[in-house]
Amino acid sequence: MQGIETDAVADAELSDPVLVEGLPGVGQVGKLAAEHLLEEHADATLVRRVHAEHFPPQVLVDEDGTTRLAAATVHAVETDGRDLLVLTGDHQAGDGPGHYRLAGTFLDIAAEFGVTDVYALGGVPTGELVEEYAVLGAVSAPELRDPLEAADVEFRSEEPAGGIVGTSGLLLGLGGRRGFDCRCLMGETSGYLVDPRSARAVLETLEDLLEFELGYDSLDDRAEEMEEVMEKLHEMEGGAGVQPDDDLRYIG
Amino acid sequence: MQGIETDAVADAELSDPVLVEGLPGVGQVGKLAAEHLLEEHADATLVRRVHAEHFPPQVLVDEDGTTRLAAATVHAVETDGRDLLVLTGDHQAGDGPGHYRLAGTFLDIAAEFGVTDVYALGGVPTGELVEEYAVLGAVSAPELRDPLEAADVEFRSEEPAGGIVGTSGLLLGLGGRRGFDCRCLMGETSGYLVDPRSARAVLETLEDLLEFELGYDSLDDRAEEMEEVMEKLHEMEGGAGVQPDDDLRYIG
Amino acid sequence: MQGIETDAVADAELSDPVLVEGLPGVGQVGKLAAEHLLEEHADATLVRRVHAEHFPPQVLVDEDGTTRLAAATVHAVETDGRDLLVLTGDHQAGDGPGHYRLAGTFLDIAAEFGVTDVYALGGVPTGELVEEYAVLGAVSAPELRDPLEAADVEFRSEEPAGGIVGTSGLLLGLGGRRGFDCRCLMGETSGYLVDPRSARAVLETLEDLLEFELGYDSLDDRAEEMEEVMEKLHEMEGGAGVQPDDDLRYIG
Amino acid sequence: MQGIETDAVADAELSDPVLVEGLPGVGQVGKLAAEHLLEEHADATLVRRVHAEHFPPQVLVDEDGTTRLAAATVHAVETDGRDLLVLTGDHQAGDGPGHYRLAGTFLDIAAEFGVTDVYALGGVPTGELVEEYAVLGAVSAPELRDPLEAADVEFRSEEPAGGIVGTSGLLLGLGGRRGFDCRCLMGETSGYLVDPRSARAVLETLEDLLEFELGYDSLDDRAEEMEEVMEKLHEMEGGAGVQPDDDLRYIG
Repeated sequence: MQGIETDAVADAELSDPVLVEGLPGVGQVGKLAAEHLLEEHADATLVRRVHAEHFPPQVLVDEDGTTRLAAATVHAVETDGRDLLVLTGDHQAGDGPGHYRLAGTFLDIAAEFGVTDVYALGGVPTGELVEEYAVLGAVSAPELRDPLEAADVEFRSEEPAGGIVGTSGLLLGLGGRRGFDCRCLMGETSGYLVDPRSARAVLETLEDLLEFELGYDSLDDRAEEMEEVMEKLHEMEGGAGVQPDDDLRYIG
Repeated sequence: MQGIETDAVADAELSDPVLVEGLPGVGQVGKLAAEHLLEEHADATLVRRVHAEHFPPQVLVDEDGTTRLAAATVHAVETDGRDLLVLTGDHQAGDGPGHYRLAGTFLDIAAEFGVTDVYALGGVPTGELVEEYAVLGAVSAPELRDPLEAADVEFRSEEPAGGIVGTSGLLLGLGGRRGFDCRCLMGETSGYLVDPRSARAVLETLEDLLEFELGYDSLDDRAEEMEEVMEKLHEMEGGAGVQPDDDLRYIG
Repeated sequence: MQGIETDAVADAELSDPVLVEGLPGVGQVGKLAAEHLLEEHADATLVRRVHAEHFPPQVLVDEDGTTRLAAATVHAVETDGRDLLVLTGDHQAGDGPGHYRLAGTFLDIAAEFGVTDVYALGGVPTGELVEEYAVLGAVSAPELRDPLEAADVEFRSEEPAGGIVGTSGLLLGLGGRRGFDCRCLMGETSGYLVDPRSARAVLETLEDLLEFELGYDSLDDRAEEMEEVMEKLHEMEGGAGVQPDDDLRYIG
Repeated sequence: MQGIETDAVADAELSDPVLVEGLPGVGQVGKLAAEHLLEEHADATLVRRVHAEHFPPQVLVDEDGTTRLAAATVHAVETDGRDLLVLTGDHQAGDGPGHYRLAGTFLDIAAEFGVTDVYALGGVPTGELVEEYAVLGAVSAPELRDPLEAADVEFRSEEPAGGIVGTSGLLLGLGGRRGFDCRCLMGETSGYLVDPRSARAVLETLEDLLEFELGYDSLDDRAEEMEEVMEKLHEMEGGAGVQPDDDLRYIG
């Protein structure tokens, strides 16, 4: 295989859908959010699968011993609000040009389904434990900012300082250039751990903006599992009998 | 030279052959197994030689001082069971896209010879000395699992944890996508040493599955050489007079 | 997106313009100089924007939260001397072939505007604090040397010893090969800090050579800011009450 | 610039010429030898210059301040024996595929001039001071070995152990595949220093094989300069008054 190959797995009739991207990254926030969106919509349809020589040269092995080639997937999701195209996957590209080429492919797919609005989901590392999960925003054009601020998305001048790296960043950069209206929603997260609570904060913002509703039981379960693991690690370090302190309770 | 070039060295009439791949990797298990298959079939015919800019830019020097450009080779082998196409070589690709492109080329060659079944051979690292050489399996489609289990191949949920990397993994991933029936047989091995005993375990499974028979004298000799080297190293470390302990006897 | 894409943002009628390049590099000398040229010419027109898969896969976030895809820009500038095409940008290429390809693209743009003269601006690291900001020169053809020496540009045999790396170097190397008359002006700089004073030295040389005049207030302000930061760092290291010594006053 | 570009600088009528390659590598042996060949033939004509995006993105600065784009050069040389095409240059390729592509380009140029015989010159590291400069050989086909052995070239089974890396290796590997008769002559050298004496050993073998004669004054001067530097370093390390010992006299 050479370059990028897109498998058209199924078709879907969506009305004015929104592309929602969540690939692996800081705190796995984007990927957790995208996967939770799919989990909560049992009738989500896999419409496109993207393979690329830019992904790592490996297969994953599933529970039943079958292998799965590294891929990005696009599912069609009908919510009680706007229709969604949900982009997630196993990996980001492994090389710079691959990032550009894959982001271009993802935008091609979005265009094919009539998408004009893009939401890239991710995490922004704070370097410390997060208690209040703020959601930071960035937009491909200034007029896209107001509606996000109305939904409590924070804009901080020139933040994140290092810019937005990878697929999320390029969807805004390349998407804006191609005329898409693109936003990035970044949940604050320590940056050290997989963070389901940050993913929930991002999804709640998205619910607000796209007017659909979501259950959070499974994501909360996952957050609690994470917290239990953390407590155990903390006990092991701190000695038996020590209570986990408040600071750690929301590491998630 | 640019890209990948396949030399058609010879032709061969094979009936419904199986592609057996063994390239360098963990414990050299796959490569040892593939080379032993060729050694035990004196009439194996080199049918294709693959050169690529994705292999390291170097030549190997043979015993007589002649140079050999890094290559992968495909031999046609008629066994007393099913016919084989044996793929082995000097190197894996040196870059990610190269892995994808070479795996695609190998599948093209397989298709050309009418192959529908693929067996990728390799090692899976245990991190400790192996006494009982279990063979782990992975398959490109669930229905391929039963016959392997019948041949004592073990399936462990989501193992190997890191997936299957390199040509073996991509043969399953890309091969499955192209409609080949692909299996990976992975011999347990410490991961620290070249492991002829693990290669034998993998080959014995293959004998069972493809109904051919193989001698193992040369592979056993190689295992014994390895063990002698290990014993000497052990003596050097442990002081004169120390007997190599049982744990080391099967390092191979 | 694949390869390199040049957006023709606007057109400009320039008479016999000179390409002036200043991209990120040692002491940010070239980039500071190019940006100062644009700042001092309020009517500078953005004529070309270059995006490339060879730039890092990221977007920068501006003050108002809008994203900006990594790019190189070309502005048309009419000075009181010769007209300029000013090339600057966010990044150098991230890979070797990308450097060659981007330099080729920049020369294509220069040719399109009728450029025959190229000035690449940059810094040359001295490894120590600089008090007198000499400007070193290099040229794509020997006959270009005399006018530079007349403007006090220094030529030192086989310096810089490591050659000239990146876009500046390739503009001379590839530009010379394509028949452009190319010079590199390199301001001495410690190599440890952003250096507005070195940028000023380079620009003063350029004023002399191209017969235009420039104000330096904003660049001097920036140098003073740098020096204040340095003094504070020095105080923090050296203890309260210590005066910054003369050696540090011009780190800028 | 993209890919590889070959400038046809001049033409030359050569009768049955031999390609002699000496690019940077271990002990700079090959490059020193090729450059000495050119120095000793004042009428050598530069016939081809090869630029490539696979070379480092930089220019070298000459004594007079003019820049020179990284390149490989091919000179036509008429000796009192066989005619030569001498290939040398500033750099090896910086990436694996670049090595393959450049070696292919060099063989294209050789073919264009009617070359059928290739001699790749280089050094082989011994890891210790060399007193007797043996020359090791490798060949693209077994029948090429005898004439080399007759000229005192040594063949050692499977040496160099790591194969022959870079352009020299690929000229044999790719050249042999294209029907050229290719030899590699490798002068023993410590591997720690630029080694003019090893280059002389290689050139003396070449003189013998191709029946031309060469002066060595300038190369010997260079070796002596190296030895003086070494003696001084040795004195500095060993204390004043210490005589450089015999082992160091031939470091070269």
